[in-house]
Amino acid sequence: MNLHDISTPQQLRNLAPDQLQEVADMLRKYIIETLSTHPGHLASSLGTVELTVAIHYIFNTPDDKLIWDVGHQAYAHKILTGRGESFSTIRTYGGLSGFPKREESEYDAFGTGHSSTSISAALGMATASELQGNTQRCHIAVIGDGALTGGEAFEALNNAGVSKSNILVILNDNGISIDKAVGGLDGYLMRITASPQYNKLKEQVWKRLDGTQGGRRHIRSLNFFQRMTSTAKTALLGGSNLFESLGLRYFGPIDGHDMKQLIDTLQRLKEMKGPKLLHIVTTKGKGLKQAEQNPVIYHAPGKYNAETGQQIVSQSKGQPLKYQDVFGHTIIELAEQNPAIVGITPAMPTGCSLNLMMERMPERTFDVGIAEQHAVTFAAGMAAQGMVPFCNIYSSFAQRAYDQLIHDVALQKLNVVMCLDRAGLVGDDGPTHHGVFDLAALRPIPNLTICAPIDEHDLRNMMYTAQLPDKGPFVIRYPRGLSVHPDWHSEMEELEIGKGHCLREGTDIALLSIGHPGNDALSAAEKLQQQGVSAAVYDFRFLKPLDIDMLDNIAAGNFKRIVTIEDGLKIGGFGSAVEEYLSVKHPEQISKLRILGIPDKFITHGPVSQLKLDCSIDIDSIVRASIE
Amino acid sequence: MNLHDISTPQQLRNLAPDQLQEVADMLRKYIIETLSTHPGHLASSLGTVELTVAIHYIFNTPDDKLIWDVGHQAYAHKILTGRGESFSTIRTYGGLSGFPKREESEYDAFGTGHSSTSISAALGMATASELQGNTQRCHIAVIGDGALTGGEAFEALNNAGVSKSNILVILNDNGISIDKAVGGLDGYLMRITASPQYNKLKEQVWKRLDGTQGGRRHIRSLNFFQRMTSTAKTALLGGSNLFESLGLRYFGPIDGHDMKQLIDTLQRLKEMKGPKLLHIVTTKGKGLKQAEQNPVIYHAPGKYNAETGQQIVSQSKGQPLKYQDVFGHTIIELAEQNPAIVGITPAMPTGCSLNLMMERMPERTFDVGIAEQHAVTFAAGMAAQGMVPFCNIYSSFAQRAYDQLIHDVALQKLNVVMCLDRAGLVGDDGPTHHGVFDLAALRPIPNLTICAPIDEHDLRNMMYTAQLPDKGPFVIRYPRGLSVHPDWHSEMEELEIGKGHCLREGTDIALLSIGHPGNDALSAAEKLQQQGVSAAVYDFRFLKPLDIDMLDNIAAGNFKRIVTIEDGLKIGGFGSAVEEYLSVKHPEQISKLRILGIPDKFITHGPVSQLKLDCSIDIDSIVRASIE
Repeated sequence: MNLHDISTPQQLRNLAPDQLQEVADMLRKYIIETLSTHPGHLASSLGTVELTVAIHYIFNTPDDKLIWDVGHQAYAHKILTGRGESFSTIRTYGGLSGFPKREESEYDAFGTGHSSTSISAALGMATASELQGNTQRCHIAVIGDGALTGGEAFEALNNAGVSKSNILVILNDNGISIDKAVGGLDGYLMRITASPQYNKLKEQVWKRLDGTQGGRRHIRSLNFFQRMTSTAKTALLGGSNLFESLGLRYFGPIDGHDMKQLIDTLQRLKEMKGPKLLHIVTTKGKGLKQAEQNPVIYHAPGKYNAETGQQIVSQSKGQPLKYQDVFGHTIIELAEQNPAIVGITPAMPTGCSLNLMMERMPERTFDVGIAEQHAVTFAAGMAAQGMVPFCNIYSSFAQRAYDQLIHDVALQKLNVVMCLDRAGLVGDDGPTHHGVFDLAALRPIPNLTICAPIDEHDLRNMMYTAQLPDKGPFVIRYPRGLSVHPDWHSEMEELEIGKGHCLREGTDIALLSIGHPGNDALSAAEKLQQQGVSAAVYDFRFLKPLDIDMLDNIAAGNFKRIVTIEDGLKIGGFGSAVEEYLSVKHPEQISKLRILGIPDKFITHGPVSQLKLDCSIDIDSIVRASIE
Repeated sequence: MNLHDISTPQQLRNLAPDQLQEVADMLRKYIIETLSTHPGHLASSLGTVELTVAIHYIFNTPDDKLIWDVGHQAYAHKILTGRGESFSTIRTYGGLSGFPKREESEYDAFGTGHSSTSISAALGMATASELQGNTQRCHIAVIGDGALTGGEAFEALNNAGVSKSNILVILNDNGISIDKAVGGLDGYLMRITASPQYNKLKEQVWKRLDGTQGGRRHIRSLNFFQRMTSTAKTALLGGSNLFESLGLRYFGPIDGHDMKQLIDTLQRLKEMKGPKLLHIVTTKGKGLKQAEQNPVIYHAPGKYNAETGQQIVSQSKGQPLKYQDVFGHTIIELAEQNPAIVGITPAMPTGCSLNLMMERMPERTFDVGIAEQHAVTFAAGMAAQGMVPFCNIYSSFAQRAYDQLIHDVALQKLNVVMCLDRAGLVGDDGPTHHGVFDLAALRPIPNLTICAPIDEHDLRNMMYTAQLPDKGPFVIRYPRGLSVHPDWHSEMEELEIGKGHCLREGTDIALLSIGHPGNDALSAAEKLQQQGVSAAVYDFRFLKPLDIDMLDNIAAGNFKRIVTIEDGLKIGGFGSAVEEYLSVKHPEQISKLRILGIPDKFITHGPVSQLKLDCSIDIDSIVRASIE
């Protein structure tokens, strides 16, 4: 058997059940080999190989609808649905998306990327099918135990439970989201899974069901099965079933790597109408020892040796730290001085480097799981009691907490420090993950101080300033990776709120920037210099309040052109802020103004350098905007 | 006893337990009498009078922290915490807020207004207390069963369950949020509450505990109590306890109007450390027959007869319908023609008038409970299957679904029609409820069509246009109440996307508006006419795409001044959009531009007419901006 011969679910369905594990093995091997040289999200997809094969074998995709929550775990799905040959292009510019995407394949029923949306979407589809008179179609949401902690998943379960919709939620329980899963729910799933009595009885129930397939007898046995497992659970677990409380029939837990059990279970569940949840237990990273042992690092390990699993770490030692590292070290440094400081992350301690503080000061660091809304109100509650919470959320995920930031933080003027990581273009993760909305979305919110560092020293100073008394709600946004100074460990100093500074004097052109793109502005000024054009560079640091004194000076500077540069949306962002002020106070300057930023469209995935070109916010674009 | 003598919890605590019901009775009477002539949120507060008295009697507020979720139910709390004399000013300009507010009283531990934040905030405070070395302080979140369906509440429970925090969640279960509560959770609570076996055993447990108070014996009895109720629940309910699944100790259900039981229970829970949940059952509207019988209408009944409870309905018959009514009738009219149309509301069917469709087409109307995030992704799921969902959410509540609108709707270009009700200044509900962020927050999102009707006919045409094929994501935002035409039932016609129209010709001044404020622009033009100034009025209808052809014409019109008017934030909204275009294409016009909109601060509560004055977006302000 060759994987190339099974490039669609239809071909898969021609196989006998006992051939399926071989398919799974081939898929796993192909994923491990491909990702060893074409980096991607490894461990999640390795955990769901058997599940993917079993779903496509049993269900009639794409007519039956399959939604992968988040979507990191959908690589085997991509390979099995006609994208095997292009699989090595995953997450590359022009290649496959790292996430399910409707425009990429009819098998991708719903685009994902952010967590906890799958049940809502599946319920919407199931409801549509019902209204359209299709009572046979199945709608499947595969969701991890990490994603299940996101509030939207609960909202959806609460609605699914009272519907009569044909929806099957498959809870892929590996005890891991990206970092370790968090919260009462996780302990609860562990208790269910670990109960030996329960598992024994369940096994007996399954055995009794064997050999009763087909026709009416099968239907009766299904009823028996439902009743029995329900009784079993009640008796043996104290029946403490969260999902049945909400009205979903609960099945499991079963071993998500046992192909036969998966096939049997899904076959039965397919014929059962109404909302139901199947709890499967999988090993994140299954099949690659290092990934099984360290699923956090092997979530997205970069390149590695396909045979040994050994990560291939870039050899350039002594390279400067990233913004993330500087954040992680600096918050500890500040927290050692200021006992009011605490750190909060919704499920991204490693990604944002809060894990450093978590190790050093576990009692003052809070990983709240995938729960951005809670993270922000929780921070507000702490701030109301005199603490200074640093709440670190990836910029695009912080969109989840937009209301909480307005309603709980800004309105109450609480001293919460929002650190928005992964701001700007993030690269390979693409449109769901670009942190390009933050500046425009946050600027209209009263009481916020919003700033962005041009380098590590600036980040440290902003963090230092934000935690000083009475600074109110503070937003610091900075990009993924990148780094400017090898000597990041600067002496920290208080920044004047709302004040920028001139980085480079010049006479012909004024380049105005906020945050990291200021480095490109400096490079552009160099290039302009080579062409005999003298460009000044002004780093505003603060989007809000905007440094209007500096704008007054710039207006008085009699420049030939004023160019703003940002890595956020042009509409409503830094350039708009400058334009709004100049329009009122210096209308004669307006014709000189050029705004560079992300255009009004969703930006695809690919290398940041390429995407910057596409968005005309690269260095040469700055040069052109300055002189053309 | 006189209510004026109990104006602080300290005075309350001087009373004997058997005097407390009398206090509750007085409070209830005072609320009923006051609100009969000073309209407010009646039914919620009547349901929690005993609870309020009991909490302040047992707990050491304000040192113990008390958070009222949403806050409609906090009127008795306001009266008991020094605000009895000013209570009749509630929801009036300069008077008490309708919600808890930190700056109003030290007893308002956390400002609320939007739903489902209280547990997160209480957990934040409890965590702060722990870190500050205070292990005695209690932190109480009172949350209704309706608010509990909001995802953030679940995120918070999931975190509370694994904490050791001193947090008491009081679930105020009345089966009602504003409309009927929704979802699997509601059925679950009903089943718990209705179980006679459970209630009988619980009673016995309580009896055994009587007379065992004080000292070690009391502590032992507490342990016994915990163990017993847990056993009782497991045995009699099948122990299916959602809250204990998440790690919270569960107590109840008890009668929330039985003062003695409340006092006893709270006393015991006060001495018990760790996270716990008390389930109380109350009657919304308790003590006023009509309110008990019709809690949806008496949620905020306006004026009524304090003796009989009879609503005093304004006698002006034949008044034109409101935007809400027109929405409610029009969606039915459209749905009768277009079978793909469905209606979705997160818990506001009566408020937004989707209840009309719900009665007529129950299978095509979905009240998903307080669950804005789910509402939007659920709509996206339906749209992905060819339906045309009209998802109606109050503008300020839609902030909860900001990410879903970007990630699930706009990115996938799905034909979801977002109807944002209560856009603009809402009046008495104040800063948490003003729908002033929508235009600025949504404008940067690619693929969205964003429009606002100037009147009922326009609303109908926008709704008609939005449901035509291939219109993609569509946002229609309109204010609460207000009405322009008595003859709302116009023939519907397709509007050209992104095209505005000239409402009134003029030569001196150009007034540019979007949505309902266009009516004020027309009135201002009349006033200007009286002063000999000729003002043209341009209704843009669409914020996005913006009618740049019309802007070109306006630029060519050689006006002395161009004034934009909107009821959203000045920063980033309609005025900014006009400014951005003129800056680039007609920079010579920029000095003529004046932008009227909501200034960069949170706007207090009060009559909309007053708030418009404060924001300088009233008719006279338009006149002044045109000529001064």
